[in-house]
Amino acid sequence: MKMLFAERALLAGGWARDVRVTLGDDGRIAAVEADTQAGAGDERLAGRILLPAPANLHSHAFQRAMAGMTEARGPDSRDSFWTWRSLMYRFVGALTPDDVEAIAAQVQVEMAEAGYAAVGEFHYLHHRPGGGAYDDMAEMAARVAAAAAETGLGLTLLPVLYLRGGCDGRAPEGGQTRFACQDIDAFARLVEGAAAAVGSLGPDARTGVAPHSLRAVPPELVREAATLRPGDPVHIHAAEQVAEVEEVSAAHGRPPVAVLLEQAGLDARWCVIHATHMQPGETQGLARSGAVAGLCPITESNLGDGIFDGVRFRAAGGVFGIGSDSNIRISLAEELRTLEYSQRLGARSRAVLAGPGSTGSGSTGRVLFEGAVAGGARACGRDAGAIEAGRLADLMTLDGEALALAGLDGDMALDGWIFAGDDRAVCDVWSAGRRLVVDGRHYASAAVEARYRAVLARLRDAA
Amino acid sequence: MKMLFAERALLAGGWARDVRVTLGDDGRIAAVEADTQAGAGDERLAGRILLPAPANLHSHAFQRAMAGMTEARGPDSRDSFWTWRSLMYRFVGALTPDDVEAIAAQVQVEMAEAGYAAVGEFHYLHHRPGGGAYDDMAEMAARVAAAAAETGLGLTLLPVLYLRGGCDGRAPEGGQTRFACQDIDAFARLVEGAAAAVGSLGPDARTGVAPHSLRAVPPELVREAATLRPGDPVHIHAAEQVAEVEEVSAAHGRPPVAVLLEQAGLDARWCVIHATHMQPGETQGLARSGAVAGLCPITESNLGDGIFDGVRFRAAGGVFGIGSDSNIRISLAEELRTLEYSQRLGARSRAVLAGPGSTGSGSTGRVLFEGAVAGGARACGRDAGAIEAGRLADLMTLDGEALALAGLDGDMALDGWIFAGDDRAVCDVWSAGRRLVVDGRHYASAAVEARYRAVLARLRDAA
Repeated sequence: MKMLFAERALLAGGWARDVRVTLGDDGRIAAVEADTQAGAGDERLAGRILLPAPANLHSHAFQRAMAGMTEARGPDSRDSFWTWRSLMYRFVGALTPDDVEAIAAQVQVEMAEAGYAAVGEFHYLHHRPGGGAYDDMAEMAARVAAAAAETGLGLTLLPVLYLRGGCDGRAPEGGQTRFACQDIDAFARLVEGAAAAVGSLGPDARTGVAPHSLRAVPPELVREAATLRPGDPVHIHAAEQVAEVEEVSAAHGRPPVAVLLEQAGLDARWCVIHATHMQPGETQGLARSGAVAGLCPITESNLGDGIFDGVRFRAAGGVFGIGSDSNIRISLAEELRTLEYSQRLGARSRAVLAGPGSTGSGSTGRVLFEGAVAGGARACGRDAGAIEAGRLADLMTLDGEALALAGLDGDMALDGWIFAGDDRAVCDVWSAGRRLVVDGRHYASAAVEARYRAVLARLRDAA
Repeated sequence: MKMLFAERALLAGGWARDVRVTLGDDGRIAAVEADTQAGAGDERLAGRILLPAPANLHSHAFQRAMAGMTEARGPDSRDSFWTWRSLMYRFVGALTPDDVEAIAAQVQVEMAEAGYAAVGEFHYLHHRPGGGAYDDMAEMAARVAAAAAETGLGLTLLPVLYLRGGCDGRAPEGGQTRFACQDIDAFARLVEGAAAAVGSLGPDARTGVAPHSLRAVPPELVREAATLRPGDPVHIHAAEQVAEVEEVSAAHGRPPVAVLLEQAGLDARWCVIHATHMQPGETQGLARSGAVAGLCPITESNLGDGIFDGVRFRAAGGVFGIGSDSNIRISLAEELRTLEYSQRLGARSRAVLAGPGSTGSGSTGRVLFEGAVAGGARACGRDAGAIEAGRLADLMTLDGEALALAGLDGDMALDGWIFAGDDRAVCDVWSAGRRLVVDGRHYASAAVEARYRAVLARLRDAA
């Protein structure tokens, strides 16, 4: 048992003063007391603001190493997501299991230092270049798990089912061959192998499944894939790009989220990644289904995807969370403000997500932050999401004296951090009670960064 | 004379290796040699990338102290720019000349540490609460100049002419009374006083004029104000908000940029701030006029203004620069990526600003960066904008080993910094040859921050 004492904390019931949180040896919060006094052995988080730490619900770790390499305009007159995607496929060809582990560890360290306690890794790089399986079919998944063993970040590993190159059933080609499984039985064995690797981590780690998209997996197999891990998270990409919506609509007579609502049985186990281009009825249906909308604001801006219909979704009671996706920037505060800013640019209004369904002070920062915490926990299958007894101890602190927060209290401190601050204000992070970050630095950052730099030098030299 | 030696530099003619830059005692670049060797007395910028440093063309320094305090949804069902504006007016009431100087110094330090060499301060807080003049009418302007004397940041001071509360000619009220001048003669005296204060700074400092907007100044007086400082910059807000466009259109029969094009004589002395909501013909007219479009992407996102028509403007040969405006975030890299991301969200495409009119590798980062450098210099009336002999020595370096840039060369290093990095990669900054930043820290940062914290504590306690 370990005790933390903070002058300010955001508990399940709202802001509280002089809070003592007891961490159990099982990674959960054993007790929470407010308006109390610190005990002699407590760790005093003096001047710091104690918060629940969100899970980052969507990551493709390896893409971190491509950051900055795909911002030039291609030879097409109209550059697009699809140009980026073909570059990504080429880059993928060069990655070894050691590379994947080194990049994943770096990404996880950066996530922890940004304030995330966990990550949902949407893991699709399964096979050797050209498509042959590694001797251990789940080699790559095991490397992601090994990175999490090193960094301590809470892992929800989501092995990806990828069967075809498009709705017309064409075979995967080029870079896609490293992602593709021959059939769902092969995928089931891969998931088993991944789950075995994840089993060596803490009890908070989870293995879900991720049918890639309706382009890569037909609806009946999306549904079947979801049965492979009963009770565990199911993630799927949908409605990120207009061309994808058109392809799915042509094949199925309705757009992708509508297909999922009708045929996949969306519920609170599910996380629909992006959900950018939906009809109003799809937005409302997704909200009512209990599935999390997995928003990736920085990546969606970088890829020119478009603007999520946040007002309608929230008005219908929808739950969202955030993901760093391509990992071009790993910054929790920036991810949250990018989400709100895209909404404001679309709506030509302010405090947009603080609108429908919000309570209290009307703070945009509070809505964004608590949304990310609750949605991230649900999407990653973590029994976290608030500071209260019995939940996983996913916690973070902010430096209340950081310039962006100084003199601000309650929700306004969150607004200050999210809109005026950055991850330099993040001091401490715990994942299921494991202390990952002290005074802004992850315990393994130096070793992990050194290894990552060596990988980067080789990959970028080759690119 | 002082010599700098960098392995990589972005010169007026493009990227070069092994570059020696000689700084003259007049604040200008005396000589530039490439493919050369370092001399014994040179300062070696080992591992760093030498770049021209942009000017930040639009700032309201005092608003920095409000950051984070206006992100809650107001009592209106539809919160907006106008809610933010009334909060800003209230906040303004509490500021003393000492406060203004302390905040301006902090803002200037942060700008330098972010990579800016200069700032265009759109200065409108002239008078005592209630509207009476200070004994020295230009007291507040002198305080901004005093901050620049302390921080060394290149200053283009733009005293603001503010005459009325709207196009209907109603009197300024509430917070506006601290901004308003009785008539243009009073304003001319204020400009003289400001110019005298600026005269005590380096020879690169400039005093321009800034008729606030067509709401606050009728067109004929906009034109007259521009004659007060022949050859110096003229800045004006226009077309930021739809309601403003409607008000101006109702009063003048055409929208604000069209009015300026017809009646104000826009040319390269002018900077039109925001220019968000324009008709296609206005966009093309503004581009052809030679006036700079003063874009403030972070603030425009925060205020929910809308998306600038960047593609049309650039296709017509328009020159843009960037400003940190409300100073809610002072980050050069983030300002630039926010600009491009707003374009991508609007166009549902990638590498948008690298499209029309761009050359070379097609790098978005290069277009953004060189745009900000050239447009910022023009808008601030600085003879800078490129590394070449005879220009002001406005320079910055990036750490080529920062994770976001490591292993990337040429334009890709700019892409890496702007899209994956932040101001932690900024190592050195010179403004007209004055060394402001060494290893990421401004020489006066500690003292300036301490004073700013004291002001912040009082203001936020009172708010």
